[in-house]
Parts: sequence; structure tokens; C-alpha cells
Amino acid sequence: MKENVDIIVKGEYILTMTDAEEPVTNGAVAIKDSRIVEVGREDAIVNKYEGQRVLGGKGYAVIPGFVNTHTHAAMVYFRGLADDLPLKDWLEGHIWPAEQKYLGNEFVYDATELACFEMIRAGITLFNDMYFFEDASAKAIKKAGMRAVLGTGILDFPTVAASTTSEYFEKAEDFIKRYSEDELIVPAIAPHAPYTCSPETYKRAMELAEKYNVTVHTHLSETQWEVEEITKRYGNTPVKHLDSHGLLDSRVLAAHCVWPTEEEIDILAQRGVSISHCLESNLKLSSGIAPVTKMLQKAVRVTFGTDGAASNNDLDIMSEMSTAAKLHKAVSGDPTVLSAREALLMATKWGAQALGLGDKVGSIEAGKLADLVLINLKNPHLTPLYDIYSHIVYSAKSSDVETVIVNGKVVLNGGDAVNLDMEEIFYKANQWSLKIRKR
Amino acid sequence: MKENVDIIVKGEYILTMTDAEEPVTNGAVAIKDSRIVEVGREDAIVNKYEGQRVLGGKGYAVIPGFVNTHTHAAMVYFRGLADDLPLKDWLEGHIWPAEQKYLGNEFVYDATELACFEMIRAGITLFNDMYFFEDASAKAIKKAGMRAVLGTGILDFPTVAASTTSEYFEKAEDFIKRYSEDELIVPAIAPHAPYTCSPETYKRAMELAEKYNVTVHTHLSETQWEVEEITKRYGNTPVKHLDSHGLLDSRVLAAHCVWPTEEEIDILAQRGVSISHCLESNLKLSSGIAPVTKMLQKAVRVTFGTDGAASNNDLDIMSEMSTAAKLHKAVSGDPTVLSAREALLMATKWGAQALGLGDKVGSIEAGKLADLVLINLKNPHLTPLYDIYSHIVYSAKSSDVETVIVNGKVVLNGGDAVNLDMEEIFYKANQWSLKIRKR
Repeated sequence: MKENVDIIVKGEYILTMTDAEEPVTNGAVAIKDSRIVEVGREDAIVNKYEGQRVLGGKGYAVIPGFVNTHTHAAMVYFRGLADDLPLKDWLEGHIWPAEQKYLGNEFVYDATELACFEMIRAGITLFNDMYFFEDASAKAIKKAGMRAVLGTGILDFPTVAASTTSEYFEKAEDFIKRYSEDELIVPAIAPHAPYTCSPETYKRAMELAEKYNVTVHTHLSETQWEVEEITKRYGNTPVKHLDSHGLLDSRVLAAHCVWPTEEEIDILAQRGVSISHCLESNLKLSSGIAPVTKMLQKAVRVTFGTDGAASNNDLDIMSEMSTAAKLHKAVSGDPTVLSAREALLMATKWGAQALGLGDKVGSIEAGKLADLVLINLKNPHLTPLYDIYSHIVYSAKSSDVETVIVNGKVVLNGGDAVNLDMEEIFYKANQWSLKIRKR
Repeated sequence: MKENVDIIVKGEYILTMTDAEEPVTNGAVAIKDSRIVEVGREDAIVNKYEGQRVLGGKGYAVIPGFVNTHTHAAMVYFRGLADDLPLKDWLEGHIWPAEQKYLGNEFVYDATELACFEMIRAGITLFNDMYFFEDASAKAIKKAGMRAVLGTGILDFPTVAASTTSEYFEKAEDFIKRYSEDELIVPAIAPHAPYTCSPETYKRAMELAEKYNVTVHTHLSETQWEVEEITKRYGNTPVKHLDSHGLLDSRVLAAHCVWPTEEEIDILAQRGVSISHCLESNLKLSSGIAPVTKMLQKAVRVTFGTDGAASNNDLDIMSEMSTAAKLHKAVSGDPTVLSAREALLMATKWGAQALGLGDKVGSIEAGKLADLVLINLKNPHLTPLYDIYSHIVYSAKSSDVETVIVNGKVVLNGGDAVNLDMEEIFYKANQWSLKIRKR
């Protein structure tokens, strides 16, 4: 008598991203409720389990869902609004004014639905968001059926989201309390950056993080301007500055880290800080190229983030992974660095670990939550096939993602985000853009 | 009474890539036989012409077909065969031995069909190929309905393609003669590189090019190894070396040019040499990053090439364009360089000009051959839309290409390469890969 499960996912290649480097060929994954029950050879799995639904098969690769460790999801509504500008002008001249005018629960809900649609299509199952009105984000993300870590942004100046630092903290703490037991939403705290938050503000964020056992999500050492500014204000470069106040530990996920010194890379390694490498945003805004190879050599956990779509201009981790795996070979002068498998680890398992969810998601193994992606290999750009890791990293595109499962539920089915009203999302985005364009 | 045309292509945005920067909104293109009859507002076009077939409409962008100015199409069969290696090891340890063993008419025909399938899917209408057995390539390309410039490779050492330099030239000249009047195939001559061809061989190639009025396609200054080797052999860096023998003029399309000195950039500009910037290949093989911003500033015509799929690992000009438009902002430290529109010019019109076909294709205007692409804008990653150039360059993916027209004929229709047997292509690729894997 076979055991009933909800879904059996079959793959010609299953990349579990566990310590086993060899892919499981002609494999299958049995999923019941939200969890992976067993992973193994297809014949063994189908002999043991009866799946209510059977997906994939020959011509499919099954991989853990991609993890986007730094984004501002709702900023999709500013995609392409202002390009080919330096970060500071782009932010202060265009993005912040538009945010001041339009940000609110309705904007964030509508925009986050679009962002979820885009990310699900790109095989992202988990993302780390820093923004405001995160209640509205949470509502949209839960509707889409995605998993996310949401950090309410903290600033030392007033915005439409809050008037004082304390008000930001009150909202953040309230959010953390209300979402502490959620199945899909994991709360976090997000002090914006060393140039917008005082050391006292960071300290308060760290205390809150410790009290509620959540991660701290911040921008760090993104531009040369920031390095100069922080040095001028505090006498230390950004990483040393935070470290000198005891503000770096393994709870911290630092986005960008484009300009750490050698000494600062050592500090990041010692403190167990995780990095979200936002390559395409850093390139497009001319912020620079993070020393990823050096950070990896010193065992700093580097993961991939898209940043907001306003600076990138998409939410596509496969594209970040592919560009990074190629670029750092040229930058380091060594074509053997950042192998295809390491790049895929950064985009999946290490991302989950950086968000404090390494025991729950990030790899395909029995007992973990079922967040996984089926990639259709029957595409000319994936033909022929000698090495599946190489294909996923160097040749596959997000459009090859056919099915996405989050928490044991199918959320993307052949291009359709099954929980979302796609026509309504397009309609709302267009309506909002007409207003934003007129700003 | 309306005038009959074969196809009317409608677009919410038509990017003609002529001197008019503003896109034609709610526009249409009338096509008869192989040519564009008229471009204008949709209402004017549909009042004047009756189209046998009407494509596109609201939610579509219409752009000239992408031009891939440097590839070795048949190398798709080696895609992902050997990764994460330096160029020299990769070439001499893996690619050349595999080529020696398998290259021939059947291999090149079968592999080129796959390459055409991949390129048509990615919106490429014209490519510049350097390889051997170009008769077989031509046959496959004509079947697919694409346009290509084919240069028979010339080397100063024997391979499976020819035994002596003279034999290479005989084959090349024979090919040029036979294809001089072809509708889709434009012959060229392709001396491989300064480290594999003597100045005498280049001279002979230039004479042949002049005799038959064809372009000269070569690799140039790709790696630091090449710069050292050529300096050792000839006492000059690669560009100066060729120039010192009078071998550079506006017929020459030089692929890579990663390591030109300032002086050499001036030489390239003075001689009117066009460059094929193969960014992803240069990154992945750790060859370096070409000084594209400087070349553009000095009015060198820079275009995009994918290189072969064995080193990239795909044939996707949209991806090259997007990566380059972002990367050179970071490398130059100036986020205003390589604007979206300039990047799109490099990928279309300038590519056609570099191949000597600027009067025939590369832009959408009356009288030109109808090589164009419809991009479906109804995608989450292209929503909302403020600036069409930004979207095409920074956000669109090759999977957004829905329809491709070459020489007035539809060659891609919603993902189907209409002239190709796609199942047969997958089957053959798999069969060949089983042999190649065993090498």
C-alpha cells in the first residue's frame, strides 16, 4: 500500500544543494502539506508514494527556490522612472520625492503584488524586503503564496511612513509582534544605512532584534560617497564604524558592501555578517564592484540580491547569479573562481542561511519546507547538456522556470501565478504609473 | 482603394533606430516582399494599406532585429562542455581537440540549425560567423530564414578543415564566389587572429576582401597572453602590429579588442575598424573588460557579439546589451555613459553598419529590408512602463521576443521557429552530445 502525498515532483536532474555535489538523476521529490517527505530516485519514490499531483519528469531540472536577499519589492512601480543617473541624484532627485508623494498602504499592496508576480515567474520563493507599510506587503505576499522576510525600514528623519525615529521603531516592533508566528512571513528589523541612522538607532535595532530573535537588514558601504561621508562624520569607514559600536553580528544581513577594505572584510568574516551582493544595481548606478572573490575566500557568506527594480531594473536572481559568476572571473583575473555550483549555492542555500532560515529552506531534503522550482530544459539555449550546474548558471534564463512550489503549494504553473489576478495587476500598475509619471 | 502589402506590423512603440529619437507611438510598418514600404502612425498605415497578415498591436514594441557581430554558431554543440577554465586551456585542451574529432559538414549543418533556432528565439536576425564548412552553415541558415555574414576561417596551421594556408584560402574564395549574389548569405573572409595568422596571411585576406568587396572578420587583442605573444613575436602590440603592415581599414570587424592601448584606440578610430564587444565571453574566460567607454568616446563603432556558445554560454544579444549597458557605468565610474538608446543602437543599427550592411538593414525605414522583432510588453518585469528604451535594454529578456521577421518573412511565431523542425534539432543535438561527451 502506497503512502499518499500531495505532490510528486520528478526531475531528470535534482540539484538538492546539500553536500552531495552529484545531482540526483531521474529523481523525484515527495511533498506532503508544506514539507518535503523524501527525495530519491524516481522509481523508488513512485513505488513508495502515491501523489495527488505529479509534476515534471524527463527534461526538467528541480532546484531549491531562488532567494533574493535584498530588495524593496514595492519599488517595481518606479521601474525605469529615472535611469542613467548617479545613486544620490537618482535617490534624492527622483525616487524619494516620488515615494513621499505616493507611498501608503494601497501603493505598497498593489506594487508588491506586481513584484511577487515578477519574482514567482523568476523562480524566487523567498525574498528579504526593506520598505515601509510592510503590513500591506505582507498581505500581498501571503496572497501570492510566497515566503518573505520583511523588515520595516528605520530612518532618523521623517518620511510619509513615520515622523520620528521612535515612531519608526514602534511600527517596526508592532509588525514583528504580529507576524512572529506567521507561516510565510518572517519579520525583521531594517535600519536603513549608516548615513541615515545614528549608532544609537542601530543599537536600538540590534536590541529589538535580540529581544524578538529576528535578523537585522541594512545597507552598508554601498558607494564611495558613503565611505567618505561616514569617515567624515565618525572617523571610520562604514564597516569599522558599525563594528566599533558593537553593531555587527551574525544576525546582520548587509546589502551591497561594495567598498570594504581588507581589514573590513576580515571584520565581516569574524562577526559572521552575511552579504547581499546586488551586482546589477551596483553596476547600473555606477556604485562599483564588490570584492566578492575576496569575501568568499575569507569565508564571508555572500548571497544575491536584486535591490529594488527602480535601480536594476528587474527582480531576477538568475540573471544576477549568471552575471556575477562571469564578472568576478574577469575582475579577479581567475576564470576558476565562483564556479557554477558555488554561484547556485549563493543563490539558494546560502541565501536562506543568511536570512536565518537555513534549517527550514534553501535545499531539497526530507523535513525541509517544500520551496522548489522546476526548470524546463527543452530549450535551444539549454541544448545540448553536458553539465547541469553550468546550464542553470550560465545558460538558463528566468523564463525557463515553469513551475514554482512554495510551502508545498504550487504558486506558478506554466507562467500563471495561480493565486494572483494578473490582469488586475497589470491594470493597477498602469493606473498608478499614470499618476507617478505626472509627479 | 488600399494598396496590398504582405504584412502590417503594429506596435504601441516602434523604435526605428533612425536619427529620430522619439519612438513612433501607436505605429505600424507595412512590409511587401522583402522590404519595408512605409513606417508611420497606425491609423495612417491601415488607411493606406491592406495587409495580408497583421501582427502586433497594443502592448508590443517593434524594433530592428538584433545583430550578433561575432559568433561561431556551430559551437553550440560544445555549450557547457568545459567551464571555469582560462581561454588557452579551454581552447587547446577541450575545444580544439573536440573540433578536430567531429568537425565536418554534417556537424556544422546540424549545430548551425540549433544555433539559428536559439538566435531567432532571441530576436537576432543577422549574425556574423567565423568557422569552417561554411557551406553547411549557409544551408542551415537559409533553411531557418535568417541573414548572416559567413567568413571561412583562415589559419596558418592544418586542421580538419584544410591542410595548408593556401587550401584555406581556396575554400574561402570558392565560398565567396558562390554566395556573392545570395539573398540571405553575405560572404566574408575570416583570418582567425594575429597569433594564428602571419601578416602575409592577413595581407592575402585583405586582398581577397578588396577583390570581392567583402568584410574581414578577425579576433584581435582578446587576452593579455595575446598581447605578450604578439609583442614577443613582432615587437608590437596586436592592433599596432596589424596596422604596421597596413592591415586595418573600414572593412575590418575586430572581435574582442579587450586590451588596446590609448594609442591603439586612436588607430582603430582612424582606420574605421568596427569592434565586436563580446562582454560575457570575455568575463567568463577572464580575458578582461574591453575599454568600451573610451572606444565610444573616440568614435570607434562598437557593436555586440556573443562569441560561440561554448564560452558564453548562450547566443543572446539582449543579455549582452543589458550587461554591457550596466557594467560600463561601473567600470568607467560614470552612470551616464552607455545610455539605453546608445546600447540599443550598438545592438542593431551599428551592428549592421559594422558588417557593411548599414544601407540594407539595422533600422526600420522605408526601402530597407524588413528584419524586425516584436517584443511583448505584457510581462510583469516590463510593468509599468515609463521609458521604452530603458525597458528594452535594462528589463526585457530574449524570452519577451514573440515574433521575428527576416527579409519580410515571419521566421519566429510565438516561440516557434517556423522553418525548422524543432524536435529533430533537439534529437540531433542529443545524439551528437553523446558522441562528444565520450571524446
